[in-house]
Amino acid sequence: MNSAPLSGLYGPSLSLLTDLYQLTMAYGYWKQGKQDQEAVFHLYFRKPPFGGGYAVAAGLAYAVDWLENFHFSEDDLAYLGSLRGTRDTVLFEPAFLEYLRTLRLTCDIDAIAEGTVVFANEPLLRIKGPLLQAQLLETALLTLVNFQTLIATKAARIREAAGSDQVFEFGLRRAQGFDGGLSASRAAYLGGVDGTSNLMAGQRFGIPVRGTHAHSWVQSFGEEEAAFTAYGDAFPDDSVFLVDTYDTLEGVRHAISVARQMRANGHELGGIRLDSGDLAYLSREARALLNEAGFQKTRIVASNDLDEHLITSLKQQGARIDTWGIGTKLVTAHDQPALGGVYKLAALRQTADADWDYTIKLSEQLAKTSIPGILQVRRYETEKGQPRADMLYNTAEPLPDQLTIVDPLDPTRRRPIRSTQFRELLEPVFRAGKLVAELPTLEESRTKAQREVAALDPSIRRFLNPHVYPVGLEESLNNFRMQLILEKRAVRPA
Amino acid sequence: MNSAPLSGLYGPSLSLLTDLYQLTMAYGYWKQGKQDQEAVFHLYFRKPPFGGGYAVAAGLAYAVDWLENFHFSEDDLAYLGSLRGTRDTVLFEPAFLEYLRTLRLTCDIDAIAEGTVVFANEPLLRIKGPLLQAQLLETALLTLVNFQTLIATKAARIREAAGSDQVFEFGLRRAQGFDGGLSASRAAYLGGVDGTSNLMAGQRFGIPVRGTHAHSWVQSFGEEEAAFTAYGDAFPDDSVFLVDTYDTLEGVRHAISVARQMRANGHELGGIRLDSGDLAYLSREARALLNEAGFQKTRIVASNDLDEHLITSLKQQGARIDTWGIGTKLVTAHDQPALGGVYKLAALRQTADADWDYTIKLSEQLAKTSIPGILQVRRYETEKGQPRADMLYNTAEPLPDQLTIVDPLDPTRRRPIRSTQFRELLEPVFRAGKLVAELPTLEESRTKAQREVAALDPSIRRFLNPHVYPVGLEESLNNFRMQLILEKRAVRPA
Repeated sequence: MNSAPLSGLYGPSLSLLTDLYQLTMAYGYWKQGKQDQEAVFHLYFRKPPFGGGYAVAAGLAYAVDWLENFHFSEDDLAYLGSLRGTRDTVLFEPAFLEYLRTLRLTCDIDAIAEGTVVFANEPLLRIKGPLLQAQLLETALLTLVNFQTLIATKAARIREAAGSDQVFEFGLRRAQGFDGGLSASRAAYLGGVDGTSNLMAGQRFGIPVRGTHAHSWVQSFGEEEAAFTAYGDAFPDDSVFLVDTYDTLEGVRHAISVARQMRANGHELGGIRLDSGDLAYLSREARALLNEAGFQKTRIVASNDLDEHLITSLKQQGARIDTWGIGTKLVTAHDQPALGGVYKLAALRQTADADWDYTIKLSEQLAKTSIPGILQVRRYETEKGQPRADMLYNTAEPLPDQLTIVDPLDPTRRRPIRSTQFRELLEPVFRAGKLVAELPTLEESRTKAQREVAALDPSIRRFLNPHVYPVGLEESLNNFRMQLILEKRAVRPA
Repeated sequence: MNSAPLSGLYGPSLSLLTDLYQLTMAYGYWKQGKQDQEAVFHLYFRKPPFGGGYAVAAGLAYAVDWLENFHFSEDDLAYLGSLRGTRDTVLFEPAFLEYLRTLRLTCDIDAIAEGTVVFANEPLLRIKGPLLQAQLLETALLTLVNFQTLIATKAARIREAAGSDQVFEFGLRRAQGFDGGLSASRAAYLGGVDGTSNLMAGQRFGIPVRGTHAHSWVQSFGEEEAAFTAYGDAFPDDSVFLVDTYDTLEGVRHAISVARQMRANGHELGGIRLDSGDLAYLSREARALLNEAGFQKTRIVASNDLDEHLITSLKQQGARIDTWGIGTKLVTAHDQPALGGVYKLAALRQTADADWDYTIKLSEQLAKTSIPGILQVRRYETEKGQPRADMLYNTAEPLPDQLTIVDPLDPTRRRPIRSTQFRELLEPVFRAGKLVAELPTLEESRTKAQREVAALDPSIRRFLNPHVYPVGLEESLNNFRMQLILEKRAVRPA
């Protein structure tokens, strides 16, 4: 179910889901005869989202699906041919459109598997291939990987706050478009929630679905006991009654009254849901009423603009909530609705047997200066699988015998590497444009995410000022990068 | 191009892009024989987004497209039939799935046109029809209308800040999924930006597209003059050079050098783009360098996490920016990434000739208590078309001769209505499930939005603590609502 998440969802070619400048650059490269120079791009983010200490990689299955279908349709070419410049001349010559007509993916693409815990500056994808083509992939890869990584990370944080409680994602109605909802449901499940209200996500991805009734159900019966009785008749073993249409604690009493009748008929009320008001107070009062009436096992479900911080606070206040329904703040990643992933050119050569020219994008901030090379991410771990440090290194140059990693933001912070226990995180996905990896199922990626997050030291997982996990550049790469920055930086004398 | 924005974009039925609870309620209504009771739902928001004074309605064209294709496919029914409850029994009986198989839209739906300025509590959509069916539409309508209204409003605010400067939306790479990007591009254009970088939005909606080159273009040439020369060769009359790959002001000097050669060949450089650093300082310095070299007409394009507040601040600082490129903060509505639209049952009757039962959802906050009735929104305007006040009234009850509107949050605030100059904002879109409206084109909706926003008093358009535009309930509706609240509120004696 997980292998082609986009296929069939979108009818036509999706290759125009990109920025115009990818096509104008492609045209320029083609005009210059540079289209087949061999390029290496890395897709990475510069800071984990939400002020946190890590992110959970997600979106690769979508990216693979998109890449497998990469081509320009006749409609796409007709549209591109219709574009006009300032002087009303065509923007692209017909011969270029002919070139695009037969263009197919031939890149080598390596990626970090979905569900892997990742950190700033680590390439989630490495694209190696003809310059024109590798450039054309930028926008779609960023769109897919940025958003799903953001949501999977948010879900992991919410899971952290909720502990072993049930957590369901209920956010479709506030999502950013249909696909914003659908891909958020997928990424949230990958990141650790237990299910979704979104039926299409259930249908396409096999995610467990949950849901009961709205306030309108109660309103349509006029009063709660009739409404709850009718709902219990329809779902005698799967009912959760929403109790806050008129007055929450009266609603709990009505739920108990109907639950007694259900029990007399051999059924048990599954739960009640609180969707407004002071959830700490109301959940404690509701628990007391339920317990007093002999409904100790009836679950209390809570929703209403929750996120990891509110869950933490409610738990600290002694709220008696068994199941959390998380909507808007999860599916839109409300406190930081975009991951600032970038796609940077890191190396280029004239032909496949020439030497590499390493390239860099400068910035006044060192954190925004790119990293040259054909990078790999090596994660050193303890024997129990707890990550200790990550090393970024250039696979095109020999590694020294004595390894040291250097903080890219502070070259005085260095750490020698003695361990030989490591994993290489970037794995082959495409070779010469052909898919060579067997992608894990969504369940497998979800299990991986839970295992990897759990293996992090709690100081890295905490919400406020988390410990910064060490990610360094291998010393010779760091030295080379510093040299390249100094070469490229044009400073006018003061 | 605008009439069926979803069609063809999504392959299969989209009717399962909904929450499970819509289906469980539908099943419950069907079990109770309540499926054909006549219901009225309103879709509205409770507060304009971004702390602003208004919103721009958008998303109706998508909603109409979705409604016209509303049906359950065989795949949908097979999936619903596969769902199991706690005791591993089917959640839905086969006879209910048969009922869904032939279910088609029969509702009457009225809506406020896209591009209309709207305020809190005003129904953007009014759905009247069989209870089961009208309930089933909730999630999709909210998803489509919430997000596009949010983005159109954000775009109108950015337009307000930019004045008559060019504004382009460049956000696809940070959007929330493919459709989050595509529908954001559409809504941003509707709300007032001049174009987008998103080619698919150009292709599907006819929106003007813009874009030049990335840092990677410059990196691939190693140095700027060669890169700019090559780009100018490809687009002699449509070039904007990105000047901050290494050092911004050096970049401007390189751009000028290449622009001189272009001029010698009969072409003019269109502009330069700044994408980092202090845009106030750099744009002034760049303007001075360009002017000194005789390039007074070369435009300065700026981008880098801009929004309406930064544009305002940069203008106050005397920045010399001609064209604004707005990405992440527009397409994700970064400071408030969701509009809290709701869908509330407001009236119900057993049969189409029975009396209406009006329904209400209470809340501890009066602002979150729903409004009963079959509502219409009447906008009173000056002769020049400036809005003066809006009145919500119940179309199913006679209007008194002397009209007064009452603030729903503060019944002591009342205003008599003397004017007879008004528009009714909700217009018929579907009758008995058939589309009866001819939808405006995207251009027409965009023109409407610009006209309507411009007609608002500047005190309502301002960003900080805007004046609250008067939206009141017609007095008899307000009295009836208060009576209903008191009847429904169950207060235990203290």
